[in-house]
Amino acid sequence: MTHQVEPAAPEGGGLDHVRVRLDLAYDGTGFAGWAMQREQRTVAGVLTEALARVLRVDVEQVRLTVAGRTDSGVHASAQVCHVDVPVAAWALLPGRSTLTPADSLVRRLSGVLPPDVRVGAAGIAPPGFDARFSALRRQYAYRICDDPGGVPPLRRYDVLGHRPPGAGRLDAALMDAASAPLLGDHDFAAFCRPREGATTIRTLLEYRWSRDPAGLLVATVTAQAFCHSMVRALVGCVLEVGDGRKPVGWPAEVLASRRRDGSFGMAPARGLTLERVDYPPDEELALRAEQARSRRSLPLA
Amino acid sequence: MTHQVEPAAPEGGGLDHVRVRLDLAYDGTGFAGWAMQREQRTVAGVLTEALARVLRVDVEQVRLTVAGRTDSGVHASAQVCHVDVPVAAWALLPGRSTLTPADSLVRRLSGVLPPDVRVGAAGIAPPGFDARFSALRRQYAYRICDDPGGVPPLRRYDVLGHRPPGAGRLDAALMDAASAPLLGDHDFAAFCRPREGATTIRTLLEYRWSRDPAGLLVATVTAQAFCHSMVRALVGCVLEVGDGRKPVGWPAEVLASRRRDGSFGMAPARGLTLERVDYPPDEELALRAEQARSRRSLPLA
Repeated sequence: MTHQVEPAAPEGGGLDHVRVRLDLAYDGTGFAGWAMQREQRTVAGVLTEALARVLRVDVEQVRLTVAGRTDSGVHASAQVCHVDVPVAAWALLPGRSTLTPADSLVRRLSGVLPPDVRVGAAGIAPPGFDARFSALRRQYAYRICDDPGGVPPLRRYDVLGHRPPGAGRLDAALMDAASAPLLGDHDFAAFCRPREGATTIRTLLEYRWSRDPAGLLVATVTAQAFCHSMVRALVGCVLEVGDGRKPVGWPAEVLASRRRDGSFGMAPARGLTLERVDYPPDEELALRAEQARSRRSLPLA
Repeated sequence: MTHQVEPAAPEGGGLDHVRVRLDLAYDGTGFAGWAMQREQRTVAGVLTEALARVLRVDVEQVRLTVAGRTDSGVHASAQVCHVDVPVAAWALLPGRSTLTPADSLVRRLSGVLPPDVRVGAAGIAPPGFDARFSALRRQYAYRICDDPGGVPPLRRYDVLGHRPPGAGRLDAALMDAASAPLLGDHDFAAFCRPREGATTIRTLLEYRWSRDPAGLLVATVTAQAFCHSMVRALVGCVLEVGDGRKPVGWPAEVLASRRRDGSFGMAPARGLTLERVDYPPDEELALRAEQARSRRSLPLA
C-alpha cells in the first residue's frame, strides 16, 4: 500500500538461515504505516527491533518481507511477513525451556512488543515461501458507522464515523450495486496514485458492501495486489453514491475514465484493516513466487 | 457497581418535565467510573455537562439515574439511564430542523460528547419507567485473551490478557463447571465488598464461560442486581480454577464460607463490559419500580 521500494528478498533462507513466517496484527493508529522510515514509528521498525532483541542479533541482520505494506494509520488483523533467522539464533530461542523455537519466539515477542502490535503465530516457512511474492490475494475490510449517535466508543479506532448529508443513512445495497461493475481485470488508474514505470492494471476479485450484525457498514475488498491507496480510493468513490451525491453508475464511469481527477476523496485510513492474506498449497509456493517476481513491474503490495 | 449513594429519583417527570430514556455506550478506560465525583472524569459528569449544554439548562438541573453504576475502568456497550427534561427545553431541541426532539437530542449530543461516550438512542420513556428501579436484570461480559502472543491490538482496551502458569491455556469447560453451582439465590458475602446495613443476598441468574468465534474466553454474568465489585470477584475466583491453582469445586466452597478472605483477587476492570439491561413490558414498569424501591436495603446497581 506504500510506494517505498523494499529490497528484494533473497530466494530463501539459505543453509545458514531458517525462513520464519510471522502472523501478526496491529492497531495502525500509532504507526506511520508498515515500511521503515527514519525517525518515524513504523510497524516494521518496531518489529525489527523486537526481533533483534529476542534473537540477540543486530537490527541490520533482521530483514522483514511483508505481504501487504499498509499505509499510515491502516490496521491489520492478519498480516503476514517473513524473516530469515540465523540457524544458531533460532536454535537458542527456547533457552532452558521445553518450548519449540517457534513457541518461544511468540512468547518472547509478546514480552517486548508494545500492545499495539502482536505476533500471534510463528513457524518455519515451507520451502519456496515468500510472504510477498507467494501471496495469492490480499483481503481488506473498510468499516463505517453511520449511526446518528456516532461510532461505538470501543470501535472508534478502526471504524470511520460518517453521516450522509441530511438525516439519511448509507444504502448498503446501492453501494454494493455501484461496486460490482469494478470487479475483474481493469486499468485502475483512476483509483491509483501514479507511480512512474508501474502499470495500474489490476484484477479486483471482490468488492462488496453489507451491514455486519452490529449494524456497521463493511466493505470487503480483495485483489491479487493493489496499487498504492487503491482501496481507500475505491471506498471514497462509492461513498459518493452512498451519500446520494452521485448516481449508482458513477464509479463505473470513473473507472472507464482512467483519470484520477479529484472528484472524490480517499477514505480515511482509520476505517481500513488488512484482514486476510491467502497463499497457495505448499507445493505451489515456489512456482507462485516465480510467477509474481517475473511480473515485478506490477508492484505487489 | 459503586458504593456512592445517589439521591433518589423523583417518581416521574412531573407535569413540567418529560422523562427521557438514554441508551448509551462508553469505553471506561478514561473514566473514573459512572458516578459523579469531584475533580474526577466520570461518565455521569461528562454526560451531565453535555446534556446541560445541548438542553441549555444549568448542570444542577440535570439529574441522571442509571441502570448499572459501573466502576472505574469498566465499559458499557448498552447502558441505560434516564433524565427528567423541562418540557420547554425538550420542545426547543429541534430548532429549525424537522427532526423530532429525540432525534435532535441524539445528533446534538454526538456533536458535543467526547468519542469515548456515545448516546445511541433517546426517547420519551413510557409511564412508570425508572432506569434503575424498573430494570429486571443486568448482564455483564468479561473477556479474556490467553493467547501466548497476547491480546489482539484492536481489542486491548476491553479484553484482559491472562496467561495461566506454564504453557497451558484456560479451560473454558472447567471454568463453566466451577461457575454453575453459584447460580440461584445465595448470600454472596464472599464476593461482595461489605457495606453497612446492606444485604449481600442476591440471585445469580447466569454465569457461563465459553470461547467466542475469535477465540476469546468470555464470561456472561447476569443478575437482577449485583453488590459492589461482585462480577469482578466472581471472575477472579473462577480464574483460580482456570489457572489450575484450585479444584473445580472451590468457588462453591468460597460461596458457602460467606467470608471474603483474600484467597483470590478481583479481576481487573479492563475486561468487564455492561452489555444489557432488561426491562419488563411497559404496563409492568411502574409495578416493578414499586417492588424494587420497597426493597431498597438491597442496593440495585
